[in-house]
Amino acid sequence: MRESEVIERLRRIATAPEARGLLDDVAVLDGYVVTHDSIAEGVHFLPSDPPASVGWKLVAVNLSDLAAKGAEPAGALLALTLSGPSEWALGFLGGIEAACESYGLPLLGGDTISLPIGAPRVLGMTVIGRAKAEVPHRSGGKTGDSLWLVGTVGDAAAGLALLRAESKSTGPLVDIYRRPVPQLVAGRGLAPHAHAMMDVSDGLLLDARRLAQASKSGATIELDALPLSSAFVAERGQDLAARLFAATGGDDYALLAALPAELDPETLSLPKDTRITRIGSLSGAGPSLCLTCRGEPVELPEKLGFEHEGNFPCGLSTSPMADRP
Amino acid sequence: MRESEVIERLRRIATAPEARGLLDDVAVLDGYVVTHDSIAEGVHFLPSDPPASVGWKLVAVNLSDLAAKGAEPAGALLALTLSGPSEWALGFLGGIEAACESYGLPLLGGDTISLPIGAPRVLGMTVIGRAKAEVPHRSGGKTGDSLWLVGTVGDAAAGLALLRAESKSTGPLVDIYRRPVPQLVAGRGLAPHAHAMMDVSDGLLLDARRLAQASKSGATIELDALPLSSAFVAERGQDLAARLFAATGGDDYALLAALPAELDPETLSLPKDTRITRIGSLSGAGPSLCLTCRGEPVELPEKLGFEHEGNFPCGLSTSPMADRP
Repeated sequence: MRESEVIERLRRIATAPEARGLLDDVAVLDGYVVTHDSIAEGVHFLPSDPPASVGWKLVAVNLSDLAAKGAEPAGALLALTLSGPSEWALGFLGGIEAACESYGLPLLGGDTISLPIGAPRVLGMTVIGRAKAEVPHRSGGKTGDSLWLVGTVGDAAAGLALLRAESKSTGPLVDIYRRPVPQLVAGRGLAPHAHAMMDVSDGLLLDARRLAQASKSGATIELDALPLSSAFVAERGQDLAARLFAATGGDDYALLAALPAELDPETLSLPKDTRITRIGSLSGAGPSLCLTCRGEPVELPEKLGFEHEGNFPCGLSTSPMADRP
Repeated sequence: MRESEVIERLRRIATAPEARGLLDDVAVLDGYVVTHDSIAEGVHFLPSDPPASVGWKLVAVNLSDLAAKGAEPAGALLALTLSGPSEWALGFLGGIEAACESYGLPLLGGDTISLPIGAPRVLGMTVIGRAKAEVPHRSGGKTGDSLWLVGTVGDAAAGLALLRAESKSTGPLVDIYRRPVPQLVAGRGLAPHAHAMMDVSDGLLLDARRLAQASKSGATIELDALPLSSAFVAERGQDLAARLFAATGGDDYALLAALPAELDPETLSLPKDTRITRIGSLSGAGPSLCLTCRGEPVELPEKLGFEHEGNFPCGLSTSPMADRP
């Protein structure tokens, strides 16, 4: 599979302005933000994952794309494959319902199909959101902008590592891996001010480079500034190796925003408990991504995140587990 | 898998009015009609089917749901799984592009995911349409309405039977099976006048019964009135057995409309070559489905179409091949 060919072909088909060149997390149609994400068993989730957490995550990763565009949830369509005992599907739907209720997302329809016996489950969701005024693109970042991160990075990757070592692991990191939280309210607060915004799903470094490239800029990420949770620090520490792990792990569903340098997000109406951290800046020249730690340059790691899947279109925001370190 | 449980669970989640009780082919959100259909390799299409025809069909079955609601295509999201050689995906996208161009459907986004090696392909599409004034429901049929069919029935099922006997079969029936035509323009002409309308995808008899039940009516279908193509008649004849085959075969993507008895569709502005045929009526009482042929009652066949998949939500309009006679 030469995937670049496939993505290239998709770009030649999707020429309408609403498609945003297939370079954004979403399409924008008449004031609505629309996005679709699918997940496959054995690729994006483990057969042993609790089905309710798989349902929750499918909703959350789609809502994270809405959050990055400052949109309000309007409705969802579910693509459900039926296979195996109905307990799995019922548990999965319990997670769908819990997440839809938590974030005020009405389930409007979709379809159910059978799969051949033994085929891995593939589950998809389309989410439609009502956009507010301007919908920030990935590509609007400007020289001198500060890069801000809403949320923390590394928790989900650390949780997955725990599960890989011991499938019965529990604790806050496993919870965050299984039940990510879309930053909807913070996204709505930032969207009117952000030159560019996206959700961090495939790894902060990879996603930051995507934002910088789309904005024809270079991004500098200050690794010592990365927001890490206390659970993450307790598990993996906070040295450079831990910070690089957190910055490339993916599945964070944090928000990355390019804001004017003079804007202090504290002055915006964000929820009181929003953790928002300045982690770098955009410059006009130089390579698309530079790293520093305590002011010293740091070499780029070989892998910035999960790149092999198409970032065609509109939010490939579910990084596959299969290829993780 | 006790599928009825799963569908029941979905109904308890999807309580918003826009979901139309999960009893229609589509959801209707703020004047937009939205629908999603997925197809799986080995269930809805054969691994030997030309990939371009699979792409065409995925677009066409989704547009057929829009046609049944009188909506104009506004945009599509594609859920593409990548596996095997890229030639398949490129061929598939050629079919997507051809159908999108034919019907003025802009491809806006979607996602691409990898599947585990050897997993059957699952392909999904969400289509959004702009609704015109009233969007006919399945449930609006009234006692005394005439039932009209746009298009013919049986061609696709006859084409599939030819392919099952000889996978290299060709000809007009195979073409219709592989490249169905959504009745978009006729649907827009009928929608303002139809008490109820749906597309015929799972078998005319099954779908007519669904319309009758949703409308709390009984449907009588006059088998001798069924519109059959000359290619169908040449292949299978037009006796009662052939007519029952045509009425239960599925994959027709014809439109079934309940119109006021006094309305002559010839007076509507339908495209000149529209084949529209009165095939029965709705009554206030009696069983939900009765068949006649030349005025004599005909016993219902054991199988009315493809019922085992959920008609959750919004157009399960792709009948699986696996369970066909």
